[in-house]
Amino acid sequence: MRNFELYVPTKMIFGKGEIKKLSNEVPKDKKVLLLYGGGSIKKNGIYDQVKTALKEHTVIEFSGIEANPEFTTLLKALEVIKNENIGYMLAVGGGSVIDGTKFLSSAALYEGNDPWDILANRIRTVKGLPFGTVLTLPATGSEMNSGAVVSRSETNEKMVMGGPGLFPEFSICDPTVVHSIPKRQLANGIADAYTHVLEQYMTYPADAYLQDRFSEGILQTLIEIAPSVIKDPSDYKAASNFMWCCTMALNGYIQKGVPTDWSVHMIAHELTAFYGIDHARTLAVILPSAYTKKFEHKKEKLAQYAERIFNITEGTIEEKAKEAIKRTEGFYQSLGIDTRLRDYTDDYEGFSKKVAKNLTDHGMTALGEHQDITPEVAAEIVEMSY
Amino acid sequence: MRNFELYVPTKMIFGKGEIKKLSNEVPKDKKVLLLYGGGSIKKNGIYDQVKTALKEHTVIEFSGIEANPEFTTLLKALEVIKNENIGYMLAVGGGSVIDGTKFLSSAALYEGNDPWDILANRIRTVKGLPFGTVLTLPATGSEMNSGAVVSRSETNEKMVMGGPGLFPEFSICDPTVVHSIPKRQLANGIADAYTHVLEQYMTYPADAYLQDRFSEGILQTLIEIAPSVIKDPSDYKAASNFMWCCTMALNGYIQKGVPTDWSVHMIAHELTAFYGIDHARTLAVILPSAYTKKFEHKKEKLAQYAERIFNITEGTIEEKAKEAIKRTEGFYQSLGIDTRLRDYTDDYEGFSKKVAKNLTDHGMTALGEHQDITPEVAAEIVEMSY
Repeated sequence: MRNFELYVPTKMIFGKGEIKKLSNEVPKDKKVLLLYGGGSIKKNGIYDQVKTALKEHTVIEFSGIEANPEFTTLLKALEVIKNENIGYMLAVGGGSVIDGTKFLSSAALYEGNDPWDILANRIRTVKGLPFGTVLTLPATGSEMNSGAVVSRSETNEKMVMGGPGLFPEFSICDPTVVHSIPKRQLANGIADAYTHVLEQYMTYPADAYLQDRFSEGILQTLIEIAPSVIKDPSDYKAASNFMWCCTMALNGYIQKGVPTDWSVHMIAHELTAFYGIDHARTLAVILPSAYTKKFEHKKEKLAQYAERIFNITEGTIEEKAKEAIKRTEGFYQSLGIDTRLRDYTDDYEGFSKKVAKNLTDHGMTALGEHQDITPEVAAEIVEMSY
Repeated sequence: MRNFELYVPTKMIFGKGEIKKLSNEVPKDKKVLLLYGGGSIKKNGIYDQVKTALKEHTVIEFSGIEANPEFTTLLKALEVIKNENIGYMLAVGGGSVIDGTKFLSSAALYEGNDPWDILANRIRTVKGLPFGTVLTLPATGSEMNSGAVVSRSETNEKMVMGGPGLFPEFSICDPTVVHSIPKRQLANGIADAYTHVLEQYMTYPADAYLQDRFSEGILQTLIEIAPSVIKDPSDYKAASNFMWCCTMALNGYIQKGVPTDWSVHMIAHELTAFYGIDHARTLAVILPSAYTKKFEHKKEKLAQYAERIFNITEGTIEEKAKEAIKRTEGFYQSLGIDTRLRDYTDDYEGFSKKVAKNLTDHGMTALGEHQDITPEVAAEIVEMSY
């Protein structure tokens, strides 16, 4: 097991009917900026619950944060924060709204000239403007971690940021929101969380037995609840486990003490940046090829995963490992998610070169747990996924 | 899954060679009270490492906190805190030293007349004197939670306390300390952590699939590493997983969203209070009888545990469940821990009545996940464990 530091100070408030607790969690002596997306929270009743809970607070609203939150949109919110002297933010939404809020948390206290530098220069945020969240879409785990992803469509860029100052002070997760989420987004959420676990698990044996068991526990639970979540999102048993899996998949606990990969995410981000394909679906496109390309490095953990998750006990390590990749692709497909780039676009010729160039431009020239995925190797992986 | 709140703000610093980080974690502008036990830290080199790391701090020492920390001993430390105007505490030890420090954290800011009231009246500590820990004995999980147990031998009492103000600010866990721990205490630590998991897991199915998987992951890992830890405590792979299991067994993550039992602990505490039997060993004595007595309520989870942990796939639920109790008793015995009261004392006749009286006196008249373990039922459980 590797040495690690683990610090997750977000207060998690989990369960049905808990949104009312906002009234005590959000400070009353600060002007609050309520941030949300395209208005689905007005249809599913969350908006009303939030406004009721905050009826004694001074609240200003900023809506319209899109999926893959846009830098230019966030700059408008930043202006509101500065003009209105906002002292606290409340993100009500999924990973995009929360990630956008994290960017704002950092940018509000950033002393440089151009807030884009936070992303471009990977500036670690040690102190941000405080905020809480109400999660409306389980998937990214952003509600209990300190990372964020922000896009800039004008330049086809999708960049990551983070730092210990970016944990939400609290997050309220009410699994009853799941019932109002479209099937497409439920499938995305499950695939996203599943892939988050794999990025932290599917490397090489590192004697972190407990972390492996926890990762496997999340994978097993996601496989177990996926059909119920898709079939009947009002099934509270399935919805609550789905929601908690998504949080635990990326709140640090399975990541600490182990090598991590994340090359699938870094490569897949380019598919969203160029084609606008849903984040989770880009992961499902890239992952099978990435694991096939890095088979020799990953085969031992792939075989362990085959045994423990899919009960594949027969065959050599290689046979088990290959079957594990197939089963993983099959799991994505069972969610209704296509796993080839050609399923999403006809215009993929030459795309691999663009990916290689973008990765080079962003300094991501050594991805993966062995830092041996160069832009050229990434391009091969992309070509394998056409 | 039940609604829950989860807040674990302790910064965990885990790994070999990390004690040096004390110099940055302990504030330099406060007078520090260094608390430890009987001096084993002077033999294993931890004391020297701590003192070296704190060479720029103002440090006063208080040693002699015993196993099952004594109220009267702690009162002496409290006097030091008040006389010396201590602003920060550093606990260097196992669960007893850390628990004692938690009591002091609460007592230092307590405004009542008699600090015993914190225990007797179960006063929840919202704000305590800040402290950090260096863990030298993996077992209780006290390094990353906000609970403590304090004893008063003059009255044969062992009482629990807690509150959100009692989380260590940080804990440093260096698994190399394991190599210097006597085998008896290693066995105790494994048994203690294992039982902590069972207290939070072995109740009834509550649709908390992920929590179940995490609990099972800790149990599986403890079973896997136990022989290596006992045989060769310098085996870092085993020691590090052992240490992390102990923390994760009681830092809140497997407890949230599920019913919990804790009756085994509450009854077993009386065995320590009366006979001075090691805490972990009292758990091993009481647990098999408690599960046998509450078999009907626990059989479904016992059967799940039989299947997932011991691969018992044949038989009825009842048969699997019975076998699970046997295997659990066998696991304790495999650690060299006796599982009957008569193995520890000849003087057990009539003891069950004393337990019933003590539980009554302390208001613990409805234990267990169904709150149906009255002092009379507890007495029966004790008699079954003679």
